[in-house]
Amino acid sequence: MADKIPFQINAADDDSLARQAVISTGRGEIQTPFFMPVGTYGAVKSQAPEELQEQGAQVVLSNAYHLYLRPGLDLLERTGGLHPFMGWDGPMLTDSGGYQVFSLAALRDVDDGGVTFKSHLDGSVHRFTPEKVIDIQRVIGSDFMMPLDECPPGDAPKKIWATAVARTTQWMSQALTRFDETGPAYGKPQYLLCIIQGGTDPGLRRQSAESLLQLQPSGVAIGGLAVGESKEELQATLEDLAPQLPADMPRYLMGVGTPADLVRAVGLGMDMFDCVLPTRNARNGQLFTSAGKLNLRNAKFRDDLGPVQDDCGCPLCRRYTRAYLRHLFVTGEVLGLRLATAHNLWFYHHMMADMRSAISSGAYSHWSREFLGRYEEGLE
Amino acid sequence: MADKIPFQINAADDDSLARQAVISTGRGEIQTPFFMPVGTYGAVKSQAPEELQEQGAQVVLSNAYHLYLRPGLDLLERTGGLHPFMGWDGPMLTDSGGYQVFSLAALRDVDDGGVTFKSHLDGSVHRFTPEKVIDIQRVIGSDFMMPLDECPPGDAPKKIWATAVARTTQWMSQALTRFDETGPAYGKPQYLLCIIQGGTDPGLRRQSAESLLQLQPSGVAIGGLAVGESKEELQATLEDLAPQLPADMPRYLMGVGTPADLVRAVGLGMDMFDCVLPTRNARNGQLFTSAGKLNLRNAKFRDDLGPVQDDCGCPLCRRYTRAYLRHLFVTGEVLGLRLATAHNLWFYHHMMADMRSAISSGAYSHWSREFLGRYEEGLE
Repeated sequence: MADKIPFQINAADDDSLARQAVISTGRGEIQTPFFMPVGTYGAVKSQAPEELQEQGAQVVLSNAYHLYLRPGLDLLERTGGLHPFMGWDGPMLTDSGGYQVFSLAALRDVDDGGVTFKSHLDGSVHRFTPEKVIDIQRVIGSDFMMPLDECPPGDAPKKIWATAVARTTQWMSQALTRFDETGPAYGKPQYLLCIIQGGTDPGLRRQSAESLLQLQPSGVAIGGLAVGESKEELQATLEDLAPQLPADMPRYLMGVGTPADLVRAVGLGMDMFDCVLPTRNARNGQLFTSAGKLNLRNAKFRDDLGPVQDDCGCPLCRRYTRAYLRHLFVTGEVLGLRLATAHNLWFYHHMMADMRSAISSGAYSHWSREFLGRYEEGLE
Repeated sequence: MADKIPFQINAADDDSLARQAVISTGRGEIQTPFFMPVGTYGAVKSQAPEELQEQGAQVVLSNAYHLYLRPGLDLLERTGGLHPFMGWDGPMLTDSGGYQVFSLAALRDVDDGGVTFKSHLDGSVHRFTPEKVIDIQRVIGSDFMMPLDECPPGDAPKKIWATAVARTTQWMSQALTRFDETGPAYGKPQYLLCIIQGGTDPGLRRQSAESLLQLQPSGVAIGGLAVGESKEELQATLEDLAPQLPADMPRYLMGVGTPADLVRAVGLGMDMFDCVLPTRNARNGQLFTSAGKLNLRNAKFRDDLGPVQDDCGCPLCRRYTRAYLRHLFVTGEVLGLRLATAHNLWFYHHMMADMRSAISSGAYSHWSREFLGRYEEGLE
């Protein structure tokens, strides 16, 4: 077992499963629900840590698999962990790298004891065990740690999902043993969440949740979604699973998703999110707004002297026109992707803040209907 | 003729031609000598305007040829010029694009009336005349305008240089006529410098300077250097030319150069500089320091937990280690080139500020010997 993440619910919506809570960590409090920008290598694309904070980020996500390969554990240990290395003082979550081993590694060989793989960078051979992945995250010093899990594709046959569920539970048990035997390297508490697998099969999902919760993790994550299944399957899986989860621990929906996905998932009681969409889309000139997405490369913005979004307070919208941002993209200026990334992250964090306010004032259902109406109309 | 740039000399060095002065513009005062970061398309690679200011930039350079092609004059006119378009409120200088027409354009056909060329982007055909280049910069709204000039390579035969000198003078005369006939589009004074050509031939340089100065420009620029000639030829050309120039107008040495080049050129009475080196080298992981250049991609910086430069106050050195910056370059993170660019520009501007202090306190020769000793020793 691991200490539970300190989690205090302030408000719960009457018409949905949405709740607003506070998580306490060794690096400050976090208001839920919240979104974590993705800083795979210890940097969120083009953004400085003080900018992430200004945008509204409370927690930054990084990745154990990638950091293990580059810059490597020796350097992180000498630096005192990833926080000082990258200059982010707030809470941090690291994904274990299970997903990366399964999606990126050149060759992999899974057995009950762990996974052996070739680095996608240089072909060197490595082995991750549940214990090793805990050790890596002790060195990284992340506030929230994730265990090694097996994450099959969204269209895998049920038999593959079932094997992944069993293995993920067994690995979580070993991870918790190593977690108990070791302690934080830098004096701040670390927490270990479990990862529920089971594809889009309700029975497997419930079985996965039940067996993992018996092991008493710090919190609960739902993995293996947004990996190729349909929106309807994602929604149905969450609807079925959410009531099975204990109310008193945070729920992290891994790798999801679009603004509309997040609004719906919060209504189903999810608290924590991460996704590459705001940063990746920004690099392609796609900007999120409350009235849908804008593709700034579109010729119709060539002479548009308005801001990307009228009521947005981000550094892009405060100062620059759509025409200037388009000009930066057309001429390949890095400042364009930087400003677009800042805007998209600002949009995500402010959307989460709006959700928190709506839950607190008992108006989440109304707010989410309004938001989705405006947002999805804009997509047409 | 054009109004002279208001130019007040505060201090002149006893042992060299170095001087410290103040230029007054419609957008504030500028302390000389100074360096202008290059923002070809209305953006300095990866940097926001408020960061340029924090780094110590007083004037930003942009380029009439590039802005004419993208985003085009219509949009700039509707925006009220380049200043509001890019969010830079301080003084700005635009190069005419003569150099770009001669170095970038796919095809060009020079005649006494101007130059016809194909865009390097889409092959469309355009014609720049001395008058047109003034009109373009009236729309851009730059505080310092440059005339169309002919800029041959540094190893061209003397005959080519001689033709370029004659043509550049003739074009300057036409440019001044158009300049007199027109006025600023946005209410702020604009100034028109002349560009001395003549390669590395002392006679041609003097002839070019003399004929251009008779036309009474706002200030004087030295073009056609740093285009392939040797350091010794550059130095000899400046040594010969500097005493020919009037003391009471600013002297702009175009496109030069390394830190050592700038220190020597200030000693020869130059006041204004621009160069792509600090921004371009930053993109390749090459950092300027007072002890020479560092190539951050070098494996020896892998575990280096010190800052890039000990006594530097830039955002990179205040917060991050050499090891982290190297990690960002190795993993291809855009934040790396952004922080490196900020450092290199900071280094250049602070070097210029140190020169200004040294001139003011009558210690320029001593300071420059010390600087060059330390800097060039570091290069070995």
